[in-house]
Amino acid sequence: MKSFIAGGITAPAGFRAAAVACGLKTKNLDLALVVADKPSSTAAVFTTNLALAAPVIVSKEHLKESNGIAQVIAVNSGCANACTGETGLVSAHKMAGSVAKATGCKLSHALIASTGVIGVPLDMTKVHNGIIAASHQLNDNTHLEAAEAIMTTDLSPKESAVKFDTPSGSVVIGGMVKGAGMIEPNMATMLGFLTTDVTIKPHLLQKALLDAVGNTFNSISIDGECSTNDSVFLMASGASDITIDENLLPVFTDGLRDLCGLLARDIVQGGEGATKLVTILVSGSRSSEEANRAAHAMANSLLVKTALNGGDPNWGRLVAVAGRAGVEFNLSRAKVRIGKALLLANNTIYPDQESIAADHLAEKEVEIEVNLGTDSEYSATVWTCDLSDQYVRINADYRT
Amino acid sequence: MKSFIAGGITAPAGFRAAAVACGLKTKNLDLALVVADKPSSTAAVFTTNLALAAPVIVSKEHLKESNGIAQVIAVNSGCANACTGETGLVSAHKMAGSVAKATGCKLSHALIASTGVIGVPLDMTKVHNGIIAASHQLNDNTHLEAAEAIMTTDLSPKESAVKFDTPSGSVVIGGMVKGAGMIEPNMATMLGFLTTDVTIKPHLLQKALLDAVGNTFNSISIDGECSTNDSVFLMASGASDITIDENLLPVFTDGLRDLCGLLARDIVQGGEGATKLVTILVSGSRSSEEANRAAHAMANSLLVKTALNGGDPNWGRLVAVAGRAGVEFNLSRAKVRIGKALLLANNTIYPDQESIAADHLAEKEVEIEVNLGTDSEYSATVWTCDLSDQYVRINADYRT
Repeated sequence: MKSFIAGGITAPAGFRAAAVACGLKTKNLDLALVVADKPSSTAAVFTTNLALAAPVIVSKEHLKESNGIAQVIAVNSGCANACTGETGLVSAHKMAGSVAKATGCKLSHALIASTGVIGVPLDMTKVHNGIIAASHQLNDNTHLEAAEAIMTTDLSPKESAVKFDTPSGSVVIGGMVKGAGMIEPNMATMLGFLTTDVTIKPHLLQKALLDAVGNTFNSISIDGECSTNDSVFLMASGASDITIDENLLPVFTDGLRDLCGLLARDIVQGGEGATKLVTILVSGSRSSEEANRAAHAMANSLLVKTALNGGDPNWGRLVAVAGRAGVEFNLSRAKVRIGKALLLANNTIYPDQESIAADHLAEKEVEIEVNLGTDSEYSATVWTCDLSDQYVRINADYRT
Repeated sequence: MKSFIAGGITAPAGFRAAAVACGLKTKNLDLALVVADKPSSTAAVFTTNLALAAPVIVSKEHLKESNGIAQVIAVNSGCANACTGETGLVSAHKMAGSVAKATGCKLSHALIASTGVIGVPLDMTKVHNGIIAASHQLNDNTHLEAAEAIMTTDLSPKESAVKFDTPSGSVVIGGMVKGAGMIEPNMATMLGFLTTDVTIKPHLLQKALLDAVGNTFNSISIDGECSTNDSVFLMASGASDITIDENLLPVFTDGLRDLCGLLARDIVQGGEGATKLVTILVSGSRSSEEANRAAHAMANSLLVKTALNGGDPNWGRLVAVAGRAGVEFNLSRAKVRIGKALLLANNTIYPDQESIAADHLAEKEVEIEVNLGTDSEYSATVWTCDLSDQYVRINADYRT
């Protein structure tokens, strides 16, 4: 028995949250706290970008120092505190210090995350006052406001929770994410905050998180970017009487993966200017790695993304990308399918199928398969969205 | 003494051209012939895409068979004859056959090129009739019409010619190109036709062409794509009394590189929806290859391109791309310059320089430098353009 439930990050017992407008954005909520009742096992995955943002550096340090234990996460939007040099690192340490002071947790149990414009100093007076104010408003029903506070150009807050049975009893995992632009694999440019009520050792929690992000958050792409800040955190409060050991880890990971998958697809559907959720399956590949590379190349191709936006079954662009993706590709045996329409197979094109493909592309959820025509059958799936003129306007005018 | 002159592909002696509307496009010229008075040394560079278009396959075969000699090139727009299977290959052979028949050249001296929609069969009746009609209209003053006939979404025809002195006398090289979308390195998605009046052995001509395209056509990028069709041809009529041998090759190559550089930058400026020509210099790199990779990553980043479109000196996006480009990068020693404004250096940001950078970004030609901060000083330059909402509209609606 598994069901998605309301309550977001405060759906699991043992967590409270708060959200305030501290003034980093000209209006709207821009700072959130997620607080566990006591120090909790915490897992995290961070961006692979070499230009690590200051909050990422500090959160990594704290988790290392505490051996995977944390109690509070503070998140601000409106400023990424990235590429801000020594000053930025000092600010990030101060931000964690404010969290520890305001909530009474140990300094190394305070984690932080920031999102917004790069290269602009963080206004620590606003952030400090925001953290103090938020710490007085903590409760177990502010999940949606917290999800709002972490938004940048997101169209709407993204949160969910899942409840499922294990042999030891029922488990709840909650989460909120922000995405919009710059979504790529390897924890690139997104923030995710996950909570659960189970008792679990930090290294098992980390294993579950790494496993779950692989074909969820790491299999989505909006514009091929990989940000300086992006991070996914998972805290386990231990408020339920269920302990997840090695035996129960697979069932826990399954539930976690379901929640991550739902949130990941929400990010794509909420991509800047996105009008469609597109599932790209690359099959007939020599290896999973090559299938994955080809699928990401298609998901990030401007010509593919604009054709999807226009609802144009221009499958030739998919083939052209397969041909330049640096993977083994056999055009004479390749196949292209859009929805149920097979447009190319065995060196033969089927122009009469294009109207069926065009009808499918007019829908909100679109499926595409490209078989690379090798002798092997490895495959990979990536979720992406189309590219609209609105994306360009949002990102051209982002800071103005 | 070197000067750019009028006359395009027919500026060098020994060439004639013609252009007709054969009906592949609903209106406008769509088929061009470039004819040398006699069989000529011919060099060519082709796309690296694995999904080779049929005309590329045929032209490669003919040049191999003739050991680098050709006399006529036929080019159509409106249909790329790519991903068209066996039928497409048959059509490409027929197209070359029509050229040989109409102009009286040997079959292996007939080269062909196509550009336009992928995955649609070539209408050989229209192409054949167009080639016959064009062959009756050949003259030495139809260069601009030929440049028009090869356009797809290009805003204007692109042609030029250069005249320069060598120790043996004056040399002329002419050329026309088409570009617009899908412009990337490695001969990706562009067509170029170059002509010269010198006498030169095929292998020296090929050497000069390979040398000249390296930091011209292969150093531009509009949208990171690499097409199935793109090719650059260079024919030497031998109509002048100047022979280019090993000794004169460097001065010939210099002139060729100047012409290719001008045409390459024309392609970027004529990029779909482009409003700016952007020169990206990546310096302080561990190797030329890494500098080149980082420069291309920046040139192809949606977030960088949209910021350029909006005139936003959002230099943090440049740093974020450097951090994910897979090259050695040292943020604490990195520098970012937009125009004359130094925005980041030695871990310090200079917000007061942003207005100077914004003024520079309002210009039509923009210069950006990112120093990767390694111990070495290798560098690379790439020319690109911004990404406008118009690009999206052009490519979303391309076939509709």
